[in-house]
Amino acid sequence: MVQETLLKKEGNNSAESLITLEETISKIKPVNEEIKQKTREKVDGLLKPVGSLGLFENMVVQLGGIMETTSPNVDKKAIVVCAADHGIVEEGITAAPKFVTELMTYQIPKYVTGVGVIAKQTNAEIVLVDVGVDADIEYSDNLVNRKIRKGTANMRTEQAMTREEAIQSIEVGIEIATNLINNGVTLLGTGEMGIGNTTPSSAIMAVLSGEDPEKVTGAGANLPDDKVLVKIEVIKDAISLHKPDKDDAIDVLSKVGGLEIGAMAGVMLAGAANKVPVVIDGFISTAAAAIAITLNPLVKDYLICSHMSHEKAAAFSLDFLGFKPYLDLGFRLGEGSGAAVAFSLIDGAVRMNNEMSTYAEQNLGVV
Amino acid sequence: MVQETLLKKEGNNSAESLITLEETISKIKPVNEEIKQKTREKVDGLLKPVGSLGLFENMVVQLGGIMETTSPNVDKKAIVVCAADHGIVEEGITAAPKFVTELMTYQIPKYVTGVGVIAKQTNAEIVLVDVGVDADIEYSDNLVNRKIRKGTANMRTEQAMTREEAIQSIEVGIEIATNLINNGVTLLGTGEMGIGNTTPSSAIMAVLSGEDPEKVTGAGANLPDDKVLVKIEVIKDAISLHKPDKDDAIDVLSKVGGLEIGAMAGVMLAGAANKVPVVIDGFISTAAAAIAITLNPLVKDYLICSHMSHEKAAAFSLDFLGFKPYLDLGFRLGEGSGAAVAFSLIDGAVRMNNEMSTYAEQNLGVV
Repeated sequence: MVQETLLKKEGNNSAESLITLEETISKIKPVNEEIKQKTREKVDGLLKPVGSLGLFENMVVQLGGIMETTSPNVDKKAIVVCAADHGIVEEGITAAPKFVTELMTYQIPKYVTGVGVIAKQTNAEIVLVDVGVDADIEYSDNLVNRKIRKGTANMRTEQAMTREEAIQSIEVGIEIATNLINNGVTLLGTGEMGIGNTTPSSAIMAVLSGEDPEKVTGAGANLPDDKVLVKIEVIKDAISLHKPDKDDAIDVLSKVGGLEIGAMAGVMLAGAANKVPVVIDGFISTAAAAIAITLNPLVKDYLICSHMSHEKAAAFSLDFLGFKPYLDLGFRLGEGSGAAVAFSLIDGAVRMNNEMSTYAEQNLGVV
Repeated sequence: MVQETLLKKEGNNSAESLITLEETISKIKPVNEEIKQKTREKVDGLLKPVGSLGLFENMVVQLGGIMETTSPNVDKKAIVVCAADHGIVEEGITAAPKFVTELMTYQIPKYVTGVGVIAKQTNAEIVLVDVGVDADIEYSDNLVNRKIRKGTANMRTEQAMTREEAIQSIEVGIEIATNLINNGVTLLGTGEMGIGNTTPSSAIMAVLSGEDPEKVTGAGANLPDDKVLVKIEVIKDAISLHKPDKDDAIDVLSKVGGLEIGAMAGVMLAGAANKVPVVIDGFISTAAAAIAITLNPLVKDYLICSHMSHEKAAAFSLDFLGFKPYLDLGFRLGEGSGAAVAFSLIDGAVRMNNEMSTYAEQNLGVV
């Protein structure tokens, strides 16, 4: 399903050379307000009462502003699923054992997991990027090797990764996303796989928001209540040990983050730098978005918030960042599954904009 | 796009003879709780934490119970859009002029309106049924003539239609839906077109719920506030003149209803009688559902509530009937547009159930 070329570096393709985090951040411009306005006018001229297709209308207006066209096209879609392991699982804060990361790293690119079967609905390609799975993986066309290290360190006692590794994880996401964009992808989604990764996500949100870890820590994948209390203690210990600087996203990511979280932040930054919308998935993607937005607040307008995850901290985190999700389906799977569902909505909204008859075609005034 | 055969009566097809309302009502059985339970067990065995795909899981369990299979298939879908006019528009309670019903009656089957462009996403067919458009229409394969009368009477002074016409309108919906089902459709949606039809919908909900018309009357398609007050008065007048019996749905439909509302109720009854799920759209479809459920409360479990319309009375009405919508996208267009979006979700949920790998396949226990 995935075309081999989508990730291969070619000729004088701009992805040929490494794109640094700094270059990417400086390339991001505000979305085009003038074209947003023109897109709104176009939508208001469609054959329906003004405003009557609600969020579909807003969605298209946002896409117009991002892509700088009143007729945005999202035919070629990809979900970048970033996978990595977490040293923190030693503390017993997950329901599933660590080897599930490796297992899912193989299954996700086969389109037989939650994100895969839903992605097939809109012909979205899945690219799984191993940024730090703690296993030797056999790679294939859409299971690519960008391993930085075999999992993070246990943040309860050491910082999760070095500052250089944190930057490198973001640059992996930038490289992969830029490659996809250079090969024609016009809609990106983020997803992840990493047993234990709600823990660093909660830690990131606690640091960036200044909230108590209790408020932003939930049950992940069916963790029993007593273990959730341990998880909260672990996060408190890590924050008090490393004292991450909330104004320095790289510091936060390196001390209490995860490699796949960095890579997802990179995908978002590259999307914004290249005027390609990025659909964020659930709670872990939201933590990545918080990192990306801290690095450059302009990123936010390039992100589309797919759904309200039912992981406990999701609602708080979206609210903290000022996102309103399009869907609330009780999902808490991750992988990019919510982003994949949102792709269908976006397809619908784009069809509305491009295929509906207009008042003008019917020789009528707008109602 | 629409196959001609879908609506043609053929050979000894059971749709050959008229199916009465009474026969249909008596044919409806409760959904199969045992197969619901088995479907839940199947979903719990999929390769994901139990419950982590939230409402997709519930959706499939409901489909399983309705269709009596743990592997429901919804490949062939149709939206029945019922069109009719309303005598009540004489009272000046609509923003759009009456001829828009006729105009949209031609445009909807061309797949160039809101419902059409969205329906194309899931290859859902649209069948527009003229139950009472106040114009002479040129019919075609998916624009079918079942006109009962040219619009209802103005319910402020006369009852909207006779009791016989009300039954006939429901039987039109039964016939059309049964025909589609006999031709392989396994997922139905309801939609409507009828300038003025939020007024009878509000009247129906006021009568059936016993609420004050003010609580269940909104702005329809962008009606100014002062006209909404007129609309409320009109509804109050109609109810106090005709005194519809809330326990007799046909009485309510005939006195303060609409021909397309009756036809949609018929689609729902036929779906339930034939174990085919019916996706209801917004407020007007909800009023039709209220009629169908009053006729036989078992219908409710066969209905899938697509979205929370932003017509004022939608939230109250869904709550009154005990529905929880899957989507809240700010739609208030009607036509079946919200049902069409829900078709994508249902497709996704069905893919989850039929295409995801299982814990058993991975030699793992359920987490």
